[in-house]
Order: sequence, then C-alpha cells, then structure tokens
Amino acid sequence: MADSKIFAPKTFAGVLAPVLTPFAADLSPDRRRFLAHCHWLLDEGINGLAVFGTTSEANSLSREERMELLEALVEDGVDSALLMPGTGCCAIPDTVRLTAHAVGLGCGGVLLLPPFYYKGVSDEGIFASVAETIERVGDARLRVYLYHIPPMAQVGYSLDLVERLRNRYPETVVGLKDSSGDWSNTAAILERFPGFATFVGSEAYLLDTLRGGGAGSITAAGNVNAAALRALYDAWQSPMADTLQAQVTAQRKVMQGYPLFAGLKAVLAAMRNDPDWNRLRPPLTALPAEQAAALIEELRRHDFPLAA
Amino acid sequence: MADSKIFAPKTFAGVLAPVLTPFAADLSPDRRRFLAHCHWLLDEGINGLAVFGTTSEANSLSREERMELLEALVEDGVDSALLMPGTGCCAIPDTVRLTAHAVGLGCGGVLLLPPFYYKGVSDEGIFASVAETIERVGDARLRVYLYHIPPMAQVGYSLDLVERLRNRYPETVVGLKDSSGDWSNTAAILERFPGFATFVGSEAYLLDTLRGGGAGSITAAGNVNAAALRALYDAWQSPMADTLQAQVTAQRKVMQGYPLFAGLKAVLAAMRNDPDWNRLRPPLTALPAEQAAALIEELRRHDFPLAA
Repeated sequence: MADSKIFAPKTFAGVLAPVLTPFAADLSPDRRRFLAHCHWLLDEGINGLAVFGTTSEANSLSREERMELLEALVEDGVDSALLMPGTGCCAIPDTVRLTAHAVGLGCGGVLLLPPFYYKGVSDEGIFASVAETIERVGDARLRVYLYHIPPMAQVGYSLDLVERLRNRYPETVVGLKDSSGDWSNTAAILERFPGFATFVGSEAYLLDTLRGGGAGSITAAGNVNAAALRALYDAWQSPMADTLQAQVTAQRKVMQGYPLFAGLKAVLAAMRNDPDWNRLRPPLTALPAEQAAALIEELRRHDFPLAA
Repeated sequence: MADSKIFAPKTFAGVLAPVLTPFAADLSPDRRRFLAHCHWLLDEGINGLAVFGTTSEANSLSREERMELLEALVEDGVDSALLMPGTGCCAIPDTVRLTAHAVGLGCGGVLLLPPFYYKGVSDEGIFASVAETIERVGDARLRVYLYHIPPMAQVGYSLDLVERLRNRYPETVVGLKDSSGDWSNTAAILERFPGFATFVGSEAYLLDTLRGGGAGSITAAGNVNAAALRALYDAWQSPMADTLQAQVTAQRKVMQGYPLFAGLKAVLAAMRNDPDWNRLRPPLTALPAEQAAALIEELRRHDFPLAA
C-alpha cells in the first residue's frame, strides 16, 4: 500500500451521527425512512454519517441488510466520502466483506469494532484480527477508525494496541472513537497520539476533545440534536463555546435517564409525529408510551428543539 | 405447530462435544481434519456433536462457513440426529437462516445463544428474539436448546425467561446448556424444570447433573477425553461413578490452568502428532510451545490418555 498517499484523503472531523435504523412492521429495515433520516441529518449540518454503529442496532442487522442500506444511500445521492459505516463483526470473513464493500462504494472510512464474542482476548489476538482484515481488503483507499466501546463490546483497543496498529498501518489506521465513557482514557489517547483523528462517544466531552486536539464526537445524540451539536463544533474556539456545551450536556443528562436507543427513537417519533420510529429490533425493545411521554416532556423543559 | 408431537423425537442425553474447528494455513476451516475429528469423537463414544459452540470458535466463523461444514458432515455420513449445531447470532436474520438450515438437514437440535452484542437487555427482548426465530423458522421439527453462557455472552437466560419460553413453546424449547460456571444456577434449573434436557457446561458437574435429573454435559473436554466421559456417563448409577468423576475432574483442573481453547488444540495436536491442530483464528491465539509442552506433561502425570 506504498502508493496510498496519492489519495491524500481528509480524515473525518466534527460531529457524526451513528444513524438510527428504522424498522418496518415486519422488522425489516425501513429504507425510505432511513434515507429520509440521513438526508435530514445532513441538512441539519451533521459532518458525517456513522451508519451501522451501536445506536444503529447494526449488530441486529445481517451483513446483507447493511450492504443493501449502504448501497441505497449512495444510489440516493449521498456523498460516500461522508459515510463511516461500522463494519466490525465477530468473524473476520464478515468484517472483510463489509469493509471491502464500504471501500468499494468510496466510503470515507469504516468504524471497526474488534471481534467481540470471545472475552479476555489478548492485544496480540485483536492486532491479528485487524491486520488480517486490512491485508485481506488490500485496498489503499481504506481508512480505519478503531471503535473502542468496552461497556458494550467488552473487548477494546488498549493504548499500546492503538500504537502498534498505527505503527504498522500509518496510512490506514487514522482515527478512533472512544466510547469508553472514561474521559481519562480519551485524554490519554489525545496526549499520546497527536494528529490521530480521535472522536469521543459522549458529546458532553466534545469541547474537551477539540481543545485536546481531537477530531470531534460520534454521538447517538447527533440523531436528534445535530444542529446544536454542529453549532457547538463550529463555535468551539469562540467565547460562546462553554455555554453551548453546557446546554448540550444538560440535554444529554436528560436522555441518560432513559434507555438510550429506545429513547432516541421515541424522540424522533415525537419530532416527526411518526410512531413507526418507535420500533426496535429484538433484543432491544421500545420505550413504554408513558416513559416516552416523560422523556419528551423533560426535554421540552430543557429547550430541546422538538420540531423536525 | 400443533402437529409437532407426531415427530416425537428423543432429546439429547449424555456427553456432547462442542467440536473444535481446525483451520488451514490460510485460516479457512480445514474440512478434512474437521470430518476426521467428528468421526473419531463418535468412535470414542460421544453421544452427540455440538458443532459450532464457543469452543468451536463458531463466532469467528461466517454463516456460510458454518453451513458448509454442517453440510459436509451430513454428506460424509454422520447421522444428523446426533448434531446440535450452535445457531445463535447477534442478528435475527442470521440466526433464522442457520437454524432453518440445521432443521432442513435433520439436525437433532440447535444450541441457541441469545443475541449477545447489546448488554443489559430485558428478558422481554430476549424472549422476543427467540420467539421471532422459532416463528420464522416455522418448522415443527425444530428442537431448541437454550445456551446460557454469561461469562462469554454476557447475556443469558434467566430462570423466569426459561419458564416463559417453555410455556410458550413446550414442544420446541426442550433443553438448555448451562455454562454459567455456577452450580447453584444449574441446581436451580434442575429443580425447577424436571424433564427439561439440562446439560452442564463443566464435566466436573456431570455426575451431579445426572443425579439431579439432568441430561448430561456439553463440554469442551469432550474433544479430547470423550471415552472417559462416556464411560462416566454409562456408569453414573454404578459404584464406580464417583471415582470416575474424580479422575475427570482432576484432569479438568489441569486444563483450567491454561487458556482453554488453545489448550485443547494443543492437546489434540500432541495426541495426533499434528501441529496444524494448533492453529486458532484471531482474536484467539495458539498456546506458545513452552506452555503447550507444560500442559501435555501435566496431563501425562494425571494419566490423561494422550494417544489418539
């Protein structure tokens, strides 16, 4: 991959949304609502679409369902440079297939979960998984963002492993999303890897991440609060930044009082007056109507923009 | 599925092995060694083959790889009634496809992991996943064994959930494998669900499980110690039972001092004098040669039958 520099692609920066996946009554992905949601997020100013993330219920989708939705997005005119699909599966052949597919469509990057079924695996084993994936895809256009989310995956990327992967694949492993929920881990990454495109999972740390030299945030809240998050990102060096951050953080605190994915779908359902958005695929379940109403009411009190 | 009784199949009983999956140098499944291993296990007296379990590195295999290996087994003359493939994936469409495929081949049952990416999910959500799978497969021949392995999957089947699933699908949900590593959980299952085909994950509890009315053990050790385990199963009501159990338990304790899956492959490699058996697919890694030698030496001292 010695010639990879000729592509000189920009890395992602700003606020990305792990796009919620709407489901039809038969639990199949609802392509029409998915496309409409993506276009709306871009109109709201989101800097990129991290489709098929944790919040997207991507791990409840088959490989084929993910590929079909990604193709639909590109066919529908979305600039694939703005797409950072999640492609990390438990099995290397699946990860390779999704990653190669994303690169083939021109996606700006992929967000790579480590294989997450086997627990207590070594850095050596995770390194081998990622290396095997990169080698098999064998495409200089590939840009990998490591997806570190130990609260969910239970398996993650240690700092030493990140260093080793960057050293081995400096043109390919260009960034990371830290969803550890542990700011000290994000701070350590920012300090140790200047120039690495580091995204924080919680928008409560967006400003801290940017001030620490990071790239931004890939946050579930981007699905419902994209305009405010983009405004914060654009203003991060202005005197307003802390005030905007405080507002966004307060809204996040409200949402944290509810199951996150179901809560976000309930908010979207309310914003669009479209109850079909309330559907989740098992094992996740929708918010009971009363809880959804309480969440909406609480957000209203925090000046959350509920009109779509 | 009202007519399901006409099949009146026997449930599994005895000692089953979650069959190790051998890999070729390119990390593809090694079909020849896989078939030979399965035939050898049956010759040794194993009561059934739980292919594509945790020990099988099944979660590192793609759906297609699992289906091809299963078809190869049946084409190679293995009685499909003796097969209990693991079919539980993160995404319902994948679980349905593998389960329907197994039923189509006449497998005696499937071992069903709950969807395991999303953590902290409700019993309601897991129930919906299993129900959706059973309904979509829609085949009265389907026999489901619930696979409870919280140390690995982090998501499991509570006793209340087991009861709910049995009540809803009495002809279909016929058994469970308890790999919680917690005997009090196994004991509670045995007490609460008499007649349920309960398997324990650790052969150290084989005798206790049988005495409690359970069906047997689905144990990783079955890959290398099938004859001794079968002898214990056959003799469980004899005066020799406790002595045989003590021997098996002592051998397990030796193996527990080493990484389990890599250790088992090292033992097989030594038994067959076939170093290719030492290969694991990332994220799992082979045992370093020194550790492997130490394991073999220790097993020898415990009268472990190392000749294949």
